[in-house]
Amino acid sequence: MAEGFKVTPWEVSGDIDYEELQRKFGTTPLDAVTVGKISKGGEPHFMLRRGVFYSHRDINAIIDAAGKGKPFVLYTGRGPSGDTHLGHLMPWVFCKWLQDTFGVPMYFQMTDDEKFLFRDMTLEETRAMAYDNALDFVALGFDPAKTKIILDTENIRTLYPIALKVAKKITFSTARAVFGFDNSNNIGTIFFTAIQAAPAFLPTEEAGEEVLCLIPCGIDQDPHFRVARDVAPGLGYPKPSLIYCKMFPSLGGGDKMSSSDEMGTIFVTDGPKAVKKKVGRAFTGGRVTVEEQRELGGNPDVCAVYKYNYCLFEPDDSKLEAMERKCRAGEILCGECKQDLTAKINVFLEGHRAAREEAKAHMGSMAYGGFEW
Amino acid sequence: MAEGFKVTPWEVSGDIDYEELQRKFGTTPLDAVTVGKISKGGEPHFMLRRGVFYSHRDINAIIDAAGKGKPFVLYTGRGPSGDTHLGHLMPWVFCKWLQDTFGVPMYFQMTDDEKFLFRDMTLEETRAMAYDNALDFVALGFDPAKTKIILDTENIRTLYPIALKVAKKITFSTARAVFGFDNSNNIGTIFFTAIQAAPAFLPTEEAGEEVLCLIPCGIDQDPHFRVARDVAPGLGYPKPSLIYCKMFPSLGGGDKMSSSDEMGTIFVTDGPKAVKKKVGRAFTGGRVTVEEQRELGGNPDVCAVYKYNYCLFEPDDSKLEAMERKCRAGEILCGECKQDLTAKINVFLEGHRAAREEAKAHMGSMAYGGFEW
Repeated sequence: MAEGFKVTPWEVSGDIDYEELQRKFGTTPLDAVTVGKISKGGEPHFMLRRGVFYSHRDINAIIDAAGKGKPFVLYTGRGPSGDTHLGHLMPWVFCKWLQDTFGVPMYFQMTDDEKFLFRDMTLEETRAMAYDNALDFVALGFDPAKTKIILDTENIRTLYPIALKVAKKITFSTARAVFGFDNSNNIGTIFFTAIQAAPAFLPTEEAGEEVLCLIPCGIDQDPHFRVARDVAPGLGYPKPSLIYCKMFPSLGGGDKMSSSDEMGTIFVTDGPKAVKKKVGRAFTGGRVTVEEQRELGGNPDVCAVYKYNYCLFEPDDSKLEAMERKCRAGEILCGECKQDLTAKINVFLEGHRAAREEAKAHMGSMAYGGFEW
Repeated sequence: MAEGFKVTPWEVSGDIDYEELQRKFGTTPLDAVTVGKISKGGEPHFMLRRGVFYSHRDINAIIDAAGKGKPFVLYTGRGPSGDTHLGHLMPWVFCKWLQDTFGVPMYFQMTDDEKFLFRDMTLEETRAMAYDNALDFVALGFDPAKTKIILDTENIRTLYPIALKVAKKITFSTARAVFGFDNSNNIGTIFFTAIQAAPAFLPTEEAGEEVLCLIPCGIDQDPHFRVARDVAPGLGYPKPSLIYCKMFPSLGGGDKMSSSDEMGTIFVTDGPKAVKKKVGRAFTGGRVTVEEQRELGGNPDVCAVYKYNYCLFEPDDSKLEAMERKCRAGEILCGECKQDLTAKINVFLEGHRAAREEAKAHMGSMAYGGFEW
């Protein structure tokens, strides 16, 4: 079972054993002391409390440095291959909290080049999608004065010299071992990781080339940053620190929400009816009949509806615990939970779409280096 | 013997059999009809008359199109890894003649990224060298209104989207087969050919993306453009045409002048004394003693001094023939020929260095897209 999963930046499949993945990748579990430090003594974000963000590389170094007044930057990104869905928003919600907590700059890299190289899409398509996806990011409320959107094809003049330095340190052997490339990969895909590494090494006015960078992202992105960390010292850059989340689950019960699984995925563009329909068909931990459920209770551990509350829609621990308890006790039925989640999602999406419209006004000033969309 | 040579964009060694190379690469010999067309009915350039430029791909298509009033562009380049030497200048002299003959635009690509990736040089070093090498190109008299210098790291914003399209069509298998890459190559070197292809596909105002491009260069560059031609139709671009020259010989008698062979190479920076010393030590077709030479004659076929006149310093065929005849007849001695060549080179270099100073005034306006050096 544990053998039956695969996690790379371009493919996630099977039932993911996150503990094993952590061991395999060599990342470090987030412990209570570290969570406390990240939260600066305040209430940890619910994604930290619940282990949605669960693993890291060297995050203590950057948090300790920040505590001593050293500046750092946040960096995350998105491969613009389709409409944004809830699985993309989840880590960004956490990113926004991190920015608020530390008051630091944030780079958001849109890898329109990557999606062109790996998918059957034109550059015009990936670029248009980049604008659209970036709206969803900005809509979450990042500080417009401290947040910059990097669009690879537009900012390549800045990224390329850094990417060249990174690329010079990575052999094809390494790229093949880390990413699973073979001889049929196109030469753009082989080079690409150097472009994804580059924002972590962007010099700033404050810190010059000694920039400390913290990258919150899905653990599927670890291969990129494992390589970036390996080459950093040889280039005179500090190693970037990472904090990793688990994948956002599919409504169908699978371990990762995926654009190719239309019914298991809620896009930001989904209207109330579509959301109702999709949540209505979600995989739950319910019993076959109402009678059985009342008598034996449900199983939230396997329930997509419960997971959605756990990961994103129920920040209040006591409410989440009540939901779990009632489910196991047979006090609530799946229909009620689905109705409740549908309402929560629709309220969220309505607000989000309004925020998206307002975000348009900030897209120009947030474009890194002032490129025109 | 014919097995004992190697020609790639990054390595030329052994005694080159140019006929075999042509067969191996699959390029076409330049015949008299084609040479006549390239010369537009006028006197062919001496490098065409003498087969210094000797092979091509599809040049008739572009010359015929030009005859019907279709615009085309010229494109050549240089990897800025060291001071310019006579071996670099040779094809540029021909490029200048082509530009004059057809009155067409010329792109000159400086691959500072390539030399960074393939050599033990910093980007600052390859960039500084790019400026310096470009001065030598401009000094040859290219039309400042029609000639643009592309510096890869500066013009990457324009080159990158084209390079991505090219890269998406080239697998690692192909790159390995064509360039001889192995697992130890860094991932930048593997991607690089896509950047070298890009200027051939730069859209122009006149022709849009249907740009016809003629690339004059050393035949060692054919692997790059063989691949570029293969992918062009799938991207909607015309295949670039090529015209190839042989390598400029070493003063030491080898088939290629090389920067690493200091005594066999005349750099544009060499003063009169250095030139005298280097030419004085040149490998010639002379006999062991003056008496033998007077009696048996010399052998210009193997003589570096004769080859220098043949390839670059004696455009006048009758003078070249006289030189050959007298040599074979024992009427002149190597010392005389060396003295004559030394004088020619020093006169050329003195004028060239003056022209280099004047070229500085044009470097700004010739920077593609107006980048600042």
